[in-house]
Order: sequence, then C-alpha cells, then structure tokens
Amino acid sequence: MRSSMEMEGLAKIEHVGKPRVVIVGGGFGGLELAKALRDAPVQVVLVDKQNYHTFQPLMYQVATAGLEAADIISPFRQILKGQSNLCFRMAEVEHVDTTTHVLKTSIGLIPYDHLIIATGATSNYFGDAEMARHAVAIKSVEDAVELRNTVLSNFEKALQIDDVEQLNSLLDFVIVGGGPTGVEVAGALSELRKHVFPKDYREIDFRQMDIHLIQSGNTLLKGMSAEASQKALEYLQKFGVDVLLDRRVQSYDGYTVTLNTGEKLITRTLIWAAGVAGAPIEGIRPESLRKGNRYEVDTFNRIAGYTNIYAIGDIAAMVSAEYPEGHPMVAQPAIQQGRLLGENIVRMLAGNPLEPFRYHDQGAMATIGRNHAVADIKMLGKDYKTQGFFAWVMWVFVHLIALVGFRNRLSVFANWTWSYFSQERGSRFIMGKRRESVETTAKSAVA
Amino acid sequence: MRSSMEMEGLAKIEHVGKPRVVIVGGGFGGLELAKALRDAPVQVVLVDKQNYHTFQPLMYQVATAGLEAADIISPFRQILKGQSNLCFRMAEVEHVDTTTHVLKTSIGLIPYDHLIIATGATSNYFGDAEMARHAVAIKSVEDAVELRNTVLSNFEKALQIDDVEQLNSLLDFVIVGGGPTGVEVAGALSELRKHVFPKDYREIDFRQMDIHLIQSGNTLLKGMSAEASQKALEYLQKFGVDVLLDRRVQSYDGYTVTLNTGEKLITRTLIWAAGVAGAPIEGIRPESLRKGNRYEVDTFNRIAGYTNIYAIGDIAAMVSAEYPEGHPMVAQPAIQQGRLLGENIVRMLAGNPLEPFRYHDQGAMATIGRNHAVADIKMLGKDYKTQGFFAWVMWVFVHLIALVGFRNRLSVFANWTWSYFSQERGSRFIMGKRRESVETTAKSAVA
Repeated sequence: MRSSMEMEGLAKIEHVGKPRVVIVGGGFGGLELAKALRDAPVQVVLVDKQNYHTFQPLMYQVATAGLEAADIISPFRQILKGQSNLCFRMAEVEHVDTTTHVLKTSIGLIPYDHLIIATGATSNYFGDAEMARHAVAIKSVEDAVELRNTVLSNFEKALQIDDVEQLNSLLDFVIVGGGPTGVEVAGALSELRKHVFPKDYREIDFRQMDIHLIQSGNTLLKGMSAEASQKALEYLQKFGVDVLLDRRVQSYDGYTVTLNTGEKLITRTLIWAAGVAGAPIEGIRPESLRKGNRYEVDTFNRIAGYTNIYAIGDIAAMVSAEYPEGHPMVAQPAIQQGRLLGENIVRMLAGNPLEPFRYHDQGAMATIGRNHAVADIKMLGKDYKTQGFFAWVMWVFVHLIALVGFRNRLSVFANWTWSYFSQERGSRFIMGKRRESVETTAKSAVA
Repeated sequence: MRSSMEMEGLAKIEHVGKPRVVIVGGGFGGLELAKALRDAPVQVVLVDKQNYHTFQPLMYQVATAGLEAADIISPFRQILKGQSNLCFRMAEVEHVDTTTHVLKTSIGLIPYDHLIIATGATSNYFGDAEMARHAVAIKSVEDAVELRNTVLSNFEKALQIDDVEQLNSLLDFVIVGGGPTGVEVAGALSELRKHVFPKDYREIDFRQMDIHLIQSGNTLLKGMSAEASQKALEYLQKFGVDVLLDRRVQSYDGYTVTLNTGEKLITRTLIWAAGVAGAPIEGIRPESLRKGNRYEVDTFNRIAGYTNIYAIGDIAAMVSAEYPEGHPMVAQPAIQQGRLLGENIVRMLAGNPLEPFRYHDQGAMATIGRNHAVADIKMLGKDYKTQGFFAWVMWVFVHLIALVGFRNRLSVFANWTWSYFSQERGSRFIMGKRRESVETTAKSAVA
C-alpha cells in the first residue's frame, strides 16, 4: 500500500530555474561530485536511501567491535550544510525514464537535466541463492552491526554447549575472499581471539576457535605487489589464521561449507568478502551494462548511449588499455571521477572543452592487525613498498585524514588509542538484528 | 520451536561448591550488588537479557541525537572483568520455582541459593492498549534509537508535504508526563528546533513545529522543590514549549490526541514519559506485589513471604513512614540497596547480624537545556536549591562522574564539548527501526 505522502506526482523540490544535476548515491564519488559543484550555476539534488555517508574502508572494524557505527558515518545534512545550491533527499530510486528525463523515486518524480549514477556496488554471490541466504556480507553499516551481533551472540551461546562439533560450529569462522576486506576481517578476528575474548569468556578454550580464510587464487591481496601479498600471508599465519589458497567454496547451507577440493568446514558464520557487482538502475538500456553490472562509460564518465547520464565510481567501467576491466572498485577512482565530473559540468555549462579522466593511482594498503600492515605507495612517479610497523602507522594516518568530519576523526583516534594500549575493543554490544542460528538438531543430522 | 541449544536441562554454569547468588537484571541495583560481592565466598551469577548495562539517566540524549547509544551503555563482561567469583549469562528469565529454588531461563535451568530480583521497571500505560500500541516510550536504548529514527524520519517526510495539517502531524510532538524524562525530552527537542533542524531542513518553517508537554498535576518535576518546579516551567516556556498543566490524555489513535478537557492535538509522535511499573517475574506469589507491580520488601530487601528471595531498585517497594509508597524509582535507591544487600549477604554467611536499609537521599536534578538546569541537593544534612547555569554545570559534572567506564566518560565529555560550542548534534542518523507513520489518507479522514 502506498501512502499519499509518497506522492504519485512530483517530489517537492524547489524549482530554481537553473540546470538540475541529480546525483543518485552519496558514497565517495557522489559526495565528492556534490562538493565539486558547490559554486556551479546548477541546482544539485543528492538522493540517497540513507541520511548518512559511510566511510566504507573501516566498516570491518565495526563488524569486529573495534569501532562504533557512528564513528564511520556522517549525516549528509551535516557534511553538506551551507552548500546553498544543494538539496538532499532521502529516497529510494525505483526507475529512470531516459526519454522524459525523470527519475522515479519513493518520494515522487524528480526531473533532471543531468543524471549521475553513483550507486556503488553490492555483494555478488554469482547466482548462488543458498549462499546469498546464509552468508553474511559487509556492504553496509547495518550489515556490519549485524555481523558483530552475530559473532558476539555465537560466543554467548557457545557457553551452553558441550558437543564438540556444535561448539566449533559457533566458534569457527570462514571468510571467503582474500582481498583487503577478507584479510582485514581475518586479522581483526584473530586479535579478538588473542586479546579480547579469552578475558570475556573464560570458560571457553580458545584453541577451539578456528579462523579460515579462503582465496580462489594463489595469492592474497590480488593487485598489490608480490611483497605485500607474501607478507600479508605471513602475518595472518603468524596470527594463527588458516589461509586456504587455490580453493573455492562450492556450497554453504548455513552449517557445512564444501570446498571444490571436497574439503568440508563446519561454521554457522560464513563471511562473504569474495565479490561485488555494480548496483544498476532500472530504465538504463541493458546494453550499457558490462560484466559485473558496471556501466560502460567514456573518458568523461558518460554512459554509452546517453548524452546527459553519467556513472562514477564502482558502478562505472571506464575501459582502457591500462584498465581493461575498468578501474579498481575502491574509493580513489570514485573520488577522482566525482571531482573531475564536477569540473567538467562547469566547463560544459560555460561552453569550454572537457577534460578526459586520468586515474592517479596512489597505491593500496591493508592492515592485518596491531603494528602489522602492508602498503604499496605510488608517489611522485615512484613506487614504494613497505610492510610491518611503518606501513601500519601510515595506514592509521591515512585513514584518520580521509575520515569525513572532525568529530569522526577525533572519536576514531580516541577509540584506536584506547584499544591500542588496553588491548580491548569498546563496542562489544549485542544490539539490534543478528543472524539466528539455524536449527541445531536438524543441522547435526545433515553434517 | 525450541533449539536443542536452549537445553531443557540445566544451564551450563560451573559448579564451584559455594552458595550461589543469582541476580536477575544488571541495572544500577543489580550491577552494584554484583560488585559488592566481589570478595564474598559465593558464586555470583548475573543474568540479563542484554549483554550491556545501560546508564538510563542519559537515554533521552540518545533519543534526541545528542549522544550515541554506545556512549551510555557498557558491556557487562567489560565492567565485571576480573571478578573471578562472577559469571555472566545473557538470557531471558521465564519463571521461578520457589520451592525447588530454580530459575527457568531461555538458556536452561539455573538453581540458586539466594535470588535477587533487580528487573527494574517498564512503561505503564494503565491498561490503555491503544496508547501502548501508538505511543513511543524511552525505557531502553533500543527505544531511544527508535525514537531518534522516528523524529528524523518525520522531518525527511515533512519536506514532501504541502497540506498544513499533515505537515503539523509530522512536525509537532506531544510529550506525556512532566517528570525528569518528560522535561528533559521537551527541552532537548526545543534545542533541536532552535539550533539544529533549521540548518538541516532549510525548506521547513520551524514556527510550525510545536512541542506540547502534558502534565496531570499542577506542577512539573513532582517531588522536587517548588523553586525547581517553577523554574523548570519558566525555562521550558522561555524555550517555546507549550506546557499544559492539569491535563490528562484520554486517548491517542496514532494521530489525534484527545485530552480530558476535550482539547485535541494532532501528532504522529506521542512520547510516553508518564508512568512506569515494576517488571515482576512469574512464579513469585502475587500477594507480594503492591501497587505499581513492585514487590513488598522488608528493610533487608527480602520479598514478603520468602527467606532467600530479594528485590532491589525500582521493582522493590520498601514501605516506611517516610516513604509510604516505597522509595522513588530512580538510580540512587537501587544503588544503595544493591550495595547494602551485598554487604548483608556477607554478614549472613558469617553469621553476623544484618544492617537494615536507610535511604540517603542526595537530592535530585533535571536539565532543561544548554546552561539551564534545576537542582535540589542534600548534603551534610542540609538542603541546597539552585537553578540555572550553576545547576547545569553540576548536572554535567555529576552525570560524567556517574557514567560507567573511562571510555564512556571520555566519549560523552568530547560529545558534549563539541555540541556546546558548535550548537550541533552529532548523532543525526536514521539507522535501524523506526515507527512508520500510519496511513495518511485514512487518518486525515479520522481527524
């Protein structure tokens, strides 16, 4: 049933007589674009289904009780206050009509002159519906909080279990995907196992808690240097993570993980960090979609087949000789594309020639745990590779700087400092949604 | 369906061969009791349905986006770590069998030698089921977060509304109950209206936003001094809150509030701060319950009719000439009873005579907004009354000191300092549950 509040007609947005730029999604790309248009002679309408921006690189810390959700999110109305040509609307996009230039949303129709799709990516289970149902993803803060609740609830439940297999199904974790998220979650769980949980759950023998990281290829952190991959593997092994290379997950029924090698693992918590795909919008011609549900765009981020519709960030695939699959689906390409597109819209309105996009790759980093990180840095045309304590300090520094808002930075800095010295984790709350374990008895029979 | 994990048999708790003291509820009273038994020759089992303690006096700030939920809660396993004679279990209590001395819980049976009921209080709608369905209470952090989500969602929706009545149904708030919670929520909403929302929602005319506070008696803050009540009223009126004294709410259908005077108010958000009642446990003989669902206890907090079952805090009514209805349902009596009962259990085990409870009333305070609070302080046998800036500074100081845990104190202090100078509120996130407005069209017809 549709409430009259969600009007069938136009959404109520002031008409200001300037070209209207509608941005769908306030992730790294959309937010940067909105800011870049601050002084442009346009009306900017930012549409997002949440009222806050999420700093995705630290989401894994929310999932592992290191940070609070509020530390890594920031309300759009706070970030963009004082930008007088911008109007934010919290709404879900349902459809776009590209002939009449109108976006259909949960709060009504929004006509646009320029439309930018910055909807990012979502988990890709490659069509495995059973996996999608049982696995836990970390694509939103709500996901991260749910994972945290699930992990902590597992331990509360484990206190009541005698049966060894049942106990291990709760204590063991399987992480699928050896990219930055998978590596970081595995590292964070191993720290919880070593420093935090043994104090919280004295009755549990933590030698029983296994952390398995499954990677389809033969290296972790694909795309980073061989040194980074190697060191990440060494660190994880040193922290007692069971890294299974060259394996794929064939099936998961919520209890038994079956690998392509025939190996079986038992866990109630499989964390999916293996693949993402773009989150396209209905109404854009399907021919514009490439592999992984990303829109094919030209060097000005225009979607193939349109003159006033653009895609930036994870949802955009700007194919080149150097990047035959498009740019990596991380923050930097999104930010850089958002900024340039903002400048190009200003150029376009002034009748000036546009600037094609060129990606400035600044490198990549991943942290495995306290004092342990790997970093490949590109600076002034040179490549620097470093692993260990210095890389970790750099990781901390870079992430604090990049966080939106003085308030978040302060809070995260305080949290990290406290955690570093106390070896504690502050956010060990079970609050809100959690995965309920599947029926134990039935599952035992299956296993 | 009952999972085999929730065993029909005994909950798995180590048997240590010492008298077992089972505490149900980790609020102010239960937590203080657990701590007081730190060195006692007993096994302490603390049972709570949450894995965290809640600092209730600041809950209203979570509801009004001033603090994050994590700022006012603290995990039991963190607070009580290192207390080797204590074991925490997250579980719901279903029933107590007072003849076999066994507590039935969601994780199994827990035998006890001494049972302490510290379950606190819950909202009392005096049997009005319609009110219970439509009103929003602030009795848990999850309630508070839901209220925050609802308030913020109202404003997001209001941006789409032209109809004046519909608009007011979203922008106006009715708070029922002029005790500390009602007064503090009303004050906090008036600050949001003045300093925060006008920047967030520039399209809304905030002269349309009304805050009504309904009090059944002829003074606010019943139980505090006449000066405090009078100043609280003045401050609220200065902040533009419509205080309606000597009124009762007759009915609320989710849209129209009808008062006993026949007056009608329109709102989608009625905040219930009018009454609480104890949260009793099944299996305790009903004759032990007094008005307001509180267990009648003697001066040693023993429930009438039992020798090894006690009640402390809000759920206990220790009737005396000075307190014919039992002590006020606030933190201090709970803390003091918890502490003394702990000491008395030690005395009892040593065969020493018990100490009867005597309440040390330290006074009461309430804050109405930035720089405005009222305080009645009892110190060294003297009464001090103060209102305004000094009372506010004292309120801030007392609440920071009382907060559990260095980490919470630091975070709250940082938040408050930032809010004070920026006139901002940090936690303006809509995340998780919110009340969905009832069907607009239908309600318009009703109104």
